[in-house]
Amino acid sequence: MMMSKAAFGIDIGGTTIKCGLFSEDGTLLKKKIIPTRTEDDGSHILEDIRDCILEVLDEEKLDKQDLIGAGLGVPGSVTNDSIVNKCINLGWGVLNVSETMSALLEIPKEKICIGNDANMAALGEYWKGSGKDYNSLMFITIGTGIGGGLIMDGKPVNGANGAAGEIGHLPIVTDLRRFCACGKIGCLEQVASANGMVKEAHTYIDLETQRRKRSMQPDEQIYNGPRKEDLATSEDVFDLAAAGSALGFTVVEKMCIYMAKALACVACVVDPECFIIGGGVAGQGEDLLDRIRHYYKTLAFHPSIETPILPASLGNDAGMYGAVKLVLDKA
Amino acid sequence: MMMSKAAFGIDIGGTTIKCGLFSEDGTLLKKKIIPTRTEDDGSHILEDIRDCILEVLDEEKLDKQDLIGAGLGVPGSVTNDSIVNKCINLGWGVLNVSETMSALLEIPKEKICIGNDANMAALGEYWKGSGKDYNSLMFITIGTGIGGGLIMDGKPVNGANGAAGEIGHLPIVTDLRRFCACGKIGCLEQVASANGMVKEAHTYIDLETQRRKRSMQPDEQIYNGPRKEDLATSEDVFDLAAAGSALGFTVVEKMCIYMAKALACVACVVDPECFIIGGGVAGQGEDLLDRIRHYYKTLAFHPSIETPILPASLGNDAGMYGAVKLVLDKA
Repeated sequence: MMMSKAAFGIDIGGTTIKCGLFSEDGTLLKKKIIPTRTEDDGSHILEDIRDCILEVLDEEKLDKQDLIGAGLGVPGSVTNDSIVNKCINLGWGVLNVSETMSALLEIPKEKICIGNDANMAALGEYWKGSGKDYNSLMFITIGTGIGGGLIMDGKPVNGANGAAGEIGHLPIVTDLRRFCACGKIGCLEQVASANGMVKEAHTYIDLETQRRKRSMQPDEQIYNGPRKEDLATSEDVFDLAAAGSALGFTVVEKMCIYMAKALACVACVVDPECFIIGGGVAGQGEDLLDRIRHYYKTLAFHPSIETPILPASLGNDAGMYGAVKLVLDKA
Repeated sequence: MMMSKAAFGIDIGGTTIKCGLFSEDGTLLKKKIIPTRTEDDGSHILEDIRDCILEVLDEEKLDKQDLIGAGLGVPGSVTNDSIVNKCINLGWGVLNVSETMSALLEIPKEKICIGNDANMAALGEYWKGSGKDYNSLMFITIGTGIGGGLIMDGKPVNGANGAAGEIGHLPIVTDLRRFCACGKIGCLEQVASANGMVKEAHTYIDLETQRRKRSMQPDEQIYNGPRKEDLATSEDVFDLAAAGSALGFTVVEKMCIYMAKALACVACVVDPECFIIGGGVAGQGEDLLDRIRHYYKTLAFHPSIETPILPASLGNDAGMYGAVKLVLDKA
């Protein structure tokens, strides 16, 4: 295959790295997935990416001169001058990824662009996914945790401290007795992420078990509801809710109410043209989105109640699309 | 006085209209305040502004040719194409202010700019006030209600429905038994604005009075704490708190906690470089700001905990500065 110019969009996750080769017009030509080697403080990650890029160029009979550049999405905050400020999942401290990567590839560092992974996924959905008819959007990914990326006027917003779009840490949950990994109490993530929903279900079980042990009424049995070991994933919780369990229902509805409240907060701050929801938990589909839409209408400020809440459409590829868009925009 | 070019920055409030004449470099040369005539659906307002502009031009021996333009801040939402979509306080329905004003003044409509009043105040503070060292900021005005304006990369953000920056309607208050004027329950404004604080104090008094009437204990007296008629303004509530009253303290601390929580929400969404707080209630000064800062540090996501919370510095003139900036930016 021959072509004039190409660019890479690379999504670096804690487990795998997705490398996409794109044509100038943004068509995904080839995708490779390699493992993320987090050993030795993640010091092999950029070398592995270099090797993958060179391999793909070779396979496609492309020259380094044909390379418009490479965009990389990383799971951590990125300053406006492309310095990565700690990626705990990769083992990285403060790292100038543009400089390191350009030295490894022997190409000018201007050809390397870096962004936060959630911002890149947001940009991907804006460009080629569910957001392609909108100018501004908030993308939310509901997985193990909750990530988010904000697009305004077609550009990802990093924020003064790289924390824009971090709606997993909105301090809006009031009845929590658990700390978030960030050290605060009350983060959205603690009730609305996959991990949060499982923890929430376990907390109810613990509380009820303890209550019955402490003060069992004559007509009460020892707690014999759903068991913690049967609730290991958010799917288990959704299945429980679908089976009619009060525990499952409570945890799922709480998730939907708080997610809706979070979107209502976002609408009061930036009033985006649409919301896009992706990530593993969003795989529950339209039923879940409909519950969130229902609560959103009761919680949002009236000018914004019609703002569409859409499912993401690029799945795990969104990050690659966004990362390559950064490069193509700059070129 | 002779000068080459000048522009007007006009802040239209529900009671008065502030008209400022500015030089090209943004110096306020002259300020006139005229009453807002809301009768006849506010149909005289733009005529009154025209008369005021012509009068000032005449006084300053300026010609209409010397006029760069006029910027107007209005208390309502403004679309990106300068249509005002209802200003309840002025009596206006949907109105194309640029067209009407340019016809009245007989100048091209491109010379008339319109913005939301809180956005204009935000832009004013960004340009000439406390925000002049920052690129992005969230401005909050705490008065009868709570208004807000968001500046990103030096530009006011309107939002898809004109609702960006409307943090008075963040749905974050969970223990409210009152509706907001917007029809929702749980708006920040209901506990953190001047009106909200007074209503909150009155609600406590009502509840306690009713409780004692219903079930007075032998050692209890009829309610004889602070009286509703003595708590007519937020200053009364602040005075009560300063005098050591539990009621005053509770209402003031609640206001500070929820305001801090609102700022923490804003930080998770757009992560601005600073917050600027203005409006009548902010006139309580550094003590109040210090309480808000204290709670902000416990509630904000860690990357943003150092974000400065600053007092506004332009007072009631902020809106005029912002409105004229719109014109000067466009010229």
